[in-house]
Amino acid sequence: MIDELKQLVWEANLQLPKQKLVTFTWGNVSGIDREQGLVVIKPSGIAYEKMTKEDMVVVDLEGKVVEGNLKPSSDTPTHLVLYKAFPQVGGIVHTHSPWATIWAQAGKGIPALGTTHADYFYGEIPCTRKMTQAEIKGAYELETGNLIVETFHSLDPMQVPGVLVHGHGPFTWGKDPNQAVYHAVVLEEVAKMAARTYQLNPNVQTIDQSLLDQHYLRKHGVNAYYGQ
Amino acid sequence: MIDELKQLVWEANLQLPKQKLVTFTWGNVSGIDREQGLVVIKPSGIAYEKMTKEDMVVVDLEGKVVEGNLKPSSDTPTHLVLYKAFPQVGGIVHTHSPWATIWAQAGKGIPALGTTHADYFYGEIPCTRKMTQAEIKGAYELETGNLIVETFHSLDPMQVPGVLVHGHGPFTWGKDPNQAVYHAVVLEEVAKMAARTYQLNPNVQTIDQSLLDQHYLRKHGVNAYYGQ
Amino acid sequence: MIDELKQLVWEANLQLPKQKLVTFTWGNVSGIDREQGLVVIKPSGIAYEKMTKEDMVVVDLEGKVVEGNLKPSSDTPTHLVLYKAFPQVGGIVHTHSPWATIWAQAGKGIPALGTTHADYFYGEIPCTRKMTQAEIKGAYELETGNLIVETFHSLDPMQVPGVLVHGHGPFTWGKDPNQAVYHAVVLEEVAKMAARTYQLNPNVQTIDQSLLDQHYLRKHGVNAYYGQ
Amino acid sequence: MIDELKQLVWEANLQLPKQKLVTFTWGNVSGIDREQGLVVIKPSGIAYEKMTKEDMVVVDLEGKVVEGNLKPSSDTPTHLVLYKAFPQVGGIVHTHSPWATIWAQAGKGIPALGTTHADYFYGEIPCTRKMTQAEIKGAYELETGNLIVETFHSLDPMQVPGVLVHGHGPFTWGKDPNQAVYHAVVLEEVAKMAARTYQLNPNVQTIDQSLLDQHYLRKHGVNAYYGQ
Repeated sequence: MIDELKQLVWEANLQLPKQKLVTFTWGNVSGIDREQGLVVIKPSGIAYEKMTKEDMVVVDLEGKVVEGNLKPSSDTPTHLVLYKAFPQVGGIVHTHSPWATIWAQAGKGIPALGTTHADYFYGEIPCTRKMTQAEIKGAYELETGNLIVETFHSLDPMQVPGVLVHGHGPFTWGKDPNQAVYHAVVLEEVAKMAARTYQLNPNVQTIDQSLLDQHYLRKHGVNAYYGQ
Repeated sequence: MIDELKQLVWEANLQLPKQKLVTFTWGNVSGIDREQGLVVIKPSGIAYEKMTKEDMVVVDLEGKVVEGNLKPSSDTPTHLVLYKAFPQVGGIVHTHSPWATIWAQAGKGIPALGTTHADYFYGEIPCTRKMTQAEIKGAYELETGNLIVETFHSLDPMQVPGVLVHGHGPFTWGKDPNQAVYHAVVLEEVAKMAARTYQLNPNVQTIDQSLLDQHYLRKHGVNAYYGQ
Repeated sequence: MIDELKQLVWEANLQLPKQKLVTFTWGNVSGIDREQGLVVIKPSGIAYEKMTKEDMVVVDLEGKVVEGNLKPSSDTPTHLVLYKAFPQVGGIVHTHSPWATIWAQAGKGIPALGTTHADYFYGEIPCTRKMTQAEIKGAYELETGNLIVETFHSLDPMQVPGVLVHGHGPFTWGKDPNQAVYHAVVLEEVAKMAARTYQLNPNVQTIDQSLLDQHYLRKHGVNAYYGQ
Repeated sequence: MIDELKQLVWEANLQLPKQKLVTFTWGNVSGIDREQGLVVIKPSGIAYEKMTKEDMVVVDLEGKVVEGNLKPSSDTPTHLVLYKAFPQVGGIVHTHSPWATIWAQAGKGIPALGTTHADYFYGEIPCTRKMTQAEIKGAYELETGNLIVETFHSLDPMQVPGVLVHGHGPFTWGKDPNQAVYHAVVLEEVAKMAARTYQLNPNVQTIDQSLLDQHYLRKHGVNAYYGQ
């Protein structure tokens, strides 16, 4: 079973360069096996094109490597915090994809300006507050995870499957590694269109709640009617 | 005959990713057989690369599926309204192509700022008004079609073969599915150049009527002299 | 000899889509044989990928077709005016390449903001005035040529091998068709960088005359020392 | 040994078009053999796709060609000044990559707006002052090198491995030719994101020193923990 998850995580990682979400090694995907309490994640600093399925690293929820010869991604502690806090999440992606990253650098959440956004994110994609000096100098990657959880204190992570870490970049997630990558692609596309929309009309308003509801709910929930 | 139309519609749908107008499954093309009163359209939520000609769905003008095993695009009711209101239209395209979509999100029509625009669109490409809450909560996709028809009350849809739906994205059309895709590509290119032109010169004016006439009419109508 | 020129013009036309300067058929390259007084040009409205060397059209300097089964580009009269007025020009390109076109749509020349510009264009790339209604309604393409010549009344076309036609798009030229395409690529790159430079610094000044001289003259003229 | 360096420099030059850092021949990479005091550099004005390993030119630190049939890059004197002034540098890249170049044209350094920047550049990437008329009219390429060295009078070139030459474009460097190219890619990506971040938030501040430290130092120095 962990072997199957390794395959999924490996393939999902290969999607990052294919979808033009990463430069060099600047991104990672993980997946979780909830029953065994094991997480599979990309090794740190390894090029996607050279990476094999066997290079995927298996860690437990405390971050201990239980399988694999390589060091796991340096962002592993962030992933683990999110898996613990968001029980429905099955896969997580971190990248420095350029359009999402400029919103993180600007310190701004991405408001829902159109139906493309509403089809996948049920409202604004939030940007975290800045980290404190203590958080940065402490267990930095773990505190990044805590900061994301804090940001979602009144949000459902399955309805808003992504976040911008202030001054850093995006994390997205989903029911499995593949859907987490899908959301990373959507976030990048939505971030691009929102930035350009503001250039065209600096006073643009978010779409009405009824339009947000209509589009989100035709793709999600019991009354969804999009797709087969 | 419907078999031939299926082939055309299938090929036109495959043009959407090739022309970089779509991400994932975010677009659809349809075509109409006016004699039989039948419309062929992409199935809902199916990836372009996996889709075969046989997956195309045939519906009548009331939206009843008369051939095919898959559900038609959720946007089918919008297409049907347009085919009924615009009798010369033979093919329709809907996408979320990013440059056209930012104009829709900004709630602005695209003015004719140059001859590239004038070669295919005889004046501003309009943006609809916002939909009312009643329209959104009602037969949403059908009301989207009605809204487009309302927007064209004093426009010739064959001279302005496209529209931006407020907060949503573009629809384009043409004499057949292939020309509808052609117009979707032109709209995206024109939308990009217009957005960037405003950044360079926020006070730019539309081109003079005589230049608009010259370029539109050298490609269209009885005195056209472009091409073979 | 005209056969050799046909080959050059055909290959230069194929460079337009390869260099991403054109969408569909929106561009054309011509070349001249000065001894015979014959111009070879792309046929009107034919797709680059389907075009053969034999499809190239040969016209005399009055625009009469002397060889070829297809109609020449509708822009042929513009090319002919330029060949007559600029005796050193051996090849001409017209495109709607998007970054150059936004400067044309904005009605602004491109100032020399850096050494990339200075390496190929010895000063501002001018934008023509608007055409009058009489010019547009008259022999439009011929008047476009006249307007360009007027714009260069005190400029050396070999030192500034390109122009923006107001509300329309760019023309570039060179000693042969290949160099004309090379200048079209440079113009597009320079247009992109200049537009973005203004966004970053709206008060940017042109580079000093001495830097313009240094870069232009290290690549051109008797003291050039760039290249082999 | 110089043969091995030729191979490295040739391969690094081929990375420039592959990484989309250059148009035509607008860029060059060199590498140094410190023991022999020899520099290997791209020949001037030769297309990357036609260039062989044997075309690489070997010069001594005074610029005398000691091996090779072609003229070295016209920027060779700039490279040599940098090798002399920065003893840890093993490879140097010059390009006109478009996003970095707009910062050079705008005459502005690139502030550290996010962790992507901090991962490789330990603070602002500086822009030089303008060159004087005397410097331009003198030994121009050598003076360009002197100007860069002046700009780094209180900076560690190994911690900030790149610079923008005012009105011109970027130079980057690294411990070897390959790392110099890596830094050229990072600079281009960081330049793009910084320009767009300012458009989104003109009042954006640089990241806090503690975040800059955290990211730079997790990849560099004795306590680095990124990678294998």
